[in-house]
Amino acid sequence: MPGTSPSTAPPSTGAHDAAAGEASAAPGPRRFGRRALLTSGAVGAGVGAAIGIATALGVQRAPEGSGAAVTAGSREAEPFGGDTLPCHGPHQAGIVTAPAAHVRYVAYALREGVDRAALTRLFRILTGDVEGLTAGVAPLADSEPELAERPSKLTVTVGVGPGLVARAGATAPGWLAPLPAFERDRLDGAHDGGDLLILIQADDPLPLAHAARMIDRELRSFVTPLWSQQGFRQARGSEADGTTMRNLMGQIDGTVNPDPSESGFEELVWIGEDGPAWLRGGSALVLRRIRMELDTWDQIGRVAREQTIGRRLSNGSPLTAPPEAEEHTPIDFEAKDAKGLPVIPSFAHARRAHSEDPSERIFRRGANYDEGGESGLLFACYQRNPLRQFVPIQRRLDELDLLNEWVTHTGSAVFAILPGFEPGELIGAALLEGG
Amino acid sequence: MPGTSPSTAPPSTGAHDAAAGEASAAPGPRRFGRRALLTSGAVGAGVGAAIGIATALGVQRAPEGSGAAVTAGSREAEPFGGDTLPCHGPHQAGIVTAPAAHVRYVAYALREGVDRAALTRLFRILTGDVEGLTAGVAPLADSEPELAERPSKLTVTVGVGPGLVARAGATAPGWLAPLPAFERDRLDGAHDGGDLLILIQADDPLPLAHAARMIDRELRSFVTPLWSQQGFRQARGSEADGTTMRNLMGQIDGTVNPDPSESGFEELVWIGEDGPAWLRGGSALVLRRIRMELDTWDQIGRVAREQTIGRRLSNGSPLTAPPEAEEHTPIDFEAKDAKGLPVIPSFAHARRAHSEDPSERIFRRGANYDEGGESGLLFACYQRNPLRQFVPIQRRLDELDLLNEWVTHTGSAVFAILPGFEPGELIGAALLEGG
Repeated sequence: MPGTSPSTAPPSTGAHDAAAGEASAAPGPRRFGRRALLTSGAVGAGVGAAIGIATALGVQRAPEGSGAAVTAGSREAEPFGGDTLPCHGPHQAGIVTAPAAHVRYVAYALREGVDRAALTRLFRILTGDVEGLTAGVAPLADSEPELAERPSKLTVTVGVGPGLVARAGATAPGWLAPLPAFERDRLDGAHDGGDLLILIQADDPLPLAHAARMIDRELRSFVTPLWSQQGFRQARGSEADGTTMRNLMGQIDGTVNPDPSESGFEELVWIGEDGPAWLRGGSALVLRRIRMELDTWDQIGRVAREQTIGRRLSNGSPLTAPPEAEEHTPIDFEAKDAKGLPVIPSFAHARRAHSEDPSERIFRRGANYDEGGESGLLFACYQRNPLRQFVPIQRRLDELDLLNEWVTHTGSAVFAILPGFEPGELIGAALLEGG
Repeated sequence: MPGTSPSTAPPSTGAHDAAAGEASAAPGPRRFGRRALLTSGAVGAGVGAAIGIATALGVQRAPEGSGAAVTAGSREAEPFGGDTLPCHGPHQAGIVTAPAAHVRYVAYALREGVDRAALTRLFRILTGDVEGLTAGVAPLADSEPELAERPSKLTVTVGVGPGLVARAGATAPGWLAPLPAFERDRLDGAHDGGDLLILIQADDPLPLAHAARMIDRELRSFVTPLWSQQGFRQARGSEADGTTMRNLMGQIDGTVNPDPSESGFEELVWIGEDGPAWLRGGSALVLRRIRMELDTWDQIGRVAREQTIGRRLSNGSPLTAPPEAEEHTPIDFEAKDAKGLPVIPSFAHARRAHSEDPSERIFRRGANYDEGGESGLLFACYQRNPLRQFVPIQRRLDELDLLNEWVTHTGSAVFAILPGFEPGELIGAALLEGG
């Protein structure tokens, strides 16, 4: 679904039992030994050294052996399976890195008795797995290492809920809690909250499924699964890189979004001095499951659908610009038609989502879902503080938005996305030190 | 999962209410009017003329307007979103055409009172939708035509069950019925049988989801949904074209498969003079949902897993060939080790699936599934007669196969895949004439 104005970004529609080594080391692909890393006291250094420590968010090729031969053919590019994104850096990967074609959110509850010491073990295992899987180097405990070899830009992004923060003996920020209730929410309880979030993304569903299962198996002695949500965007390569996604209502979704390179992005998205020390460099994720009522959406005409949003379905251009304009043309909320009526209706989604306050912006990362006869959007946004950024936008939409007739929020979760980490560090290191 | 021998191909793991035109024709992308086609009495001719009638199974580009600009970049190929596969020909598309990255099987039950005349209406609508959607030209009733514009090799393949054949007043072949019971089957009733099957495949999940919904909406006055199963293979472009898929057990799956260009393929797969007239040029699909017990599979070592199958996990080569051999090296079932024991264990999957009878072969098209905490394979195979091809293979596996410990068949369906059709013809035309 299209965004609204240059100054706001609205919500649119909108066990570790096997780790100690396997009986058969056997002939197999590249692996790295977690045990060696653990005993060296420098978790991740091995991988960091092996693959070259990333200095930017650019794509790397996986190390030797993973590049398949390229079949001759005028239109076939070099296969991208070996592409990797570095997991290390000031922020976790998977947030501002290019949107992947496939996305899975998996939420867990901590088992009883998992204390800070156990959490440290959990995060040590998780860190090793993230370093290995994202680099295309199967962790030692991986029984299907071939499924890890072609990560296709796999990223794993880790978030925590208030329950985990408490177990770590740290203090959670006020926003790390269920969102205030919205009038129109119809939460079904099946996709809400959690203690630990693992967000896995890749351009290929196979390494994604494998990574999800590997991590799940590794964590099972610490956690129990709560829910999982799978989403997709256009396939990698189906459109030019950088094309804004379309949602299942047919709209270009995500046009208005702060650019990670723009000045002020840091203050919008990355938690700084105003947040707890353990979260500096992290972010706040709001994930909303938004069901679309596509059968009734289909029943209104194209003009009515465009008026509902304020943008054209064809190319996402605002109704206030000529049809040949493009999606990034700013909306003119003051424009009137020949009869003196506003071109963008008073209750259009674009207008209701628009804020004059430049600090009321969020960084969106939506994905489509379509399963079990239900279609919708996994609306995700990152920000410093959901209570000051997502909530006021959503409150306006909840109150009055033409689009509400066709969208229903059925799931809601807030997670603290941990800061980035460097080779030799654990994910969540500062949290595990008690914040 | 790997196959076994060159002479057999085993199962491995084994409402048309909106069609009459929309209120707002509105600015929008290319469309073609179904009404025009229907009244002309030459359904499909319009599209056939517009896109050029396909003479081969090669890929075409969608007509004007669907090719996005190519972003500069050394590794980015021309976007493939506009790629189309012709739907016309002696056989339906989606069977021997290159395996797509995403697959959805949707089964329906006919509503009461849908007689032969109603079936003709159903198939007329369906034919128009298939012609439009696969060509990247939104049918007139499509409210989100932009989602149809980039089909990414979308195919729609139509199959029928015995119930539909009876309503058409035709005679079903003996094999068009539930398969004989297998001892180890644990069918849960959620993915079995049906009157009508719509198999949708594409390299991009977005046009696939859209096509599935369009067709579903169009057919709702004739049918009610029974079940839907979504599967995937490696993403297009992640590996060189033609790479055999891997399943979630980590195995290369589908190595041994008859080649559509080989002599004798016709007799194995396409129904000929021995079948009912309405089915000549069609095929018989067996679809089995096979759950994988990955947690316990992980608990046995790599050597044991390779012995279970008879092939190497690394590259699918048979254990009887040197490790540097490749997946297509024939298996030597007579080979003995230094102690005189068979290199391929007596109850290995590869040996049990192997048949000395060259007519006992099937054409496989598997896909992975991974949802709701369950992983497995959507095992699909095409043949002339399941009772003579799939069933004897599966009976041997059901009786004794080392792999059985980790795979369970939980869904089973047989459909008659209708013959191909040409521009101006309806899908299922011969069936609708009473066979």
